[in-house]
Amino acid sequence: MPRVPVPPDVTEFLSRPNPAVIATLRPDGSPHTVPTWYDWEDGRVLVNMEASRLRLSFLRKDPRAALTALDEQSWYRHVSLIGSVVSIKDDTDLTDIDRLAVRYTGKPFGRRDAKRVTAWLEPERWHGWSDAAPWP
Amino acid sequence: MPRVPVPPDVTEFLSRPNPAVIATLRPDGSPHTVPTWYDWEDGRVLVNMEASRLRLSFLRKDPRAALTALDEQSWYRHVSLIGSVVSIKDDTDLTDIDRLAVRYTGKPFGRRDAKRVTAWLEPERWHGWSDAAPWP
Repeated sequence: MPRVPVPPDVTEFLSRPNPAVIATLRPDGSPHTVPTWYDWEDGRVLVNMEASRLRLSFLRKDPRAALTALDEQSWYRHVSLIGSVVSIKDDTDLTDIDRLAVRYTGKPFGRRDAKRVTAWLEPERWHGWSDAAPWP
Repeated sequence: MPRVPVPPDVTEFLSRPNPAVIATLRPDGSPHTVPTWYDWEDGRVLVNMEASRLRLSFLRKDPRAALTALDEQSWYRHVSLIGSVVSIKDDTDLTDIDRLAVRYTGKPFGRRDAKRVTAWLEPERWHGWSDAAPWP
């Protein structure tokens, strides 16, 4: 699998509000997957979750994660990233979830009463598929 | 996370040809994700891959895996499964990849010259989201 940085066309792809699935590691080391909003900035991935989410406790214990982003028009075009979460911080004023909500829905996040947390995933490797062939 | 079996409406959902992402474990224990075709039969998940695929070597080393299936109409409806691969067999006559290709594309698989392998994932737990709330 190629190392980062990703090429410009992959950057362009990741910059879109694609459906995505993030994988984290449960305490026993088994994988856990769930769809997620994300944003792409300077080669890193922003994700945000309620403070009560299982995957947050998983990431605090083991920061390794993977994320696959799917083209909404055709999921046969996709990019996957493998790396580690390098920062976990409270999203106290909901700035980051609003950023994601605006990116995906065009408006700020609806629910204002739950504590939320932001994590930045720094990818080390990536792989992808486009036009019926490996992207790299 | 609830244990299997999944309820009837989740069975109905998983029986559709949904976009899906499978997570496996790399030799160092970090997660690896990639989109995949799958089929659902009697509470187990069929996946199929070229014999050369990285994730096949990962599954042979550690059978633990997770799979998230997304509603093609709205990816805010989804089901995730966590479990282990209980069977890995050569798909010698391409029966299983044809089964998946027909399920997803309506016709047999195009490429006939690559060796392929079938794995059955037996889920132990599941979680889901539907209508803006946890599915269980």
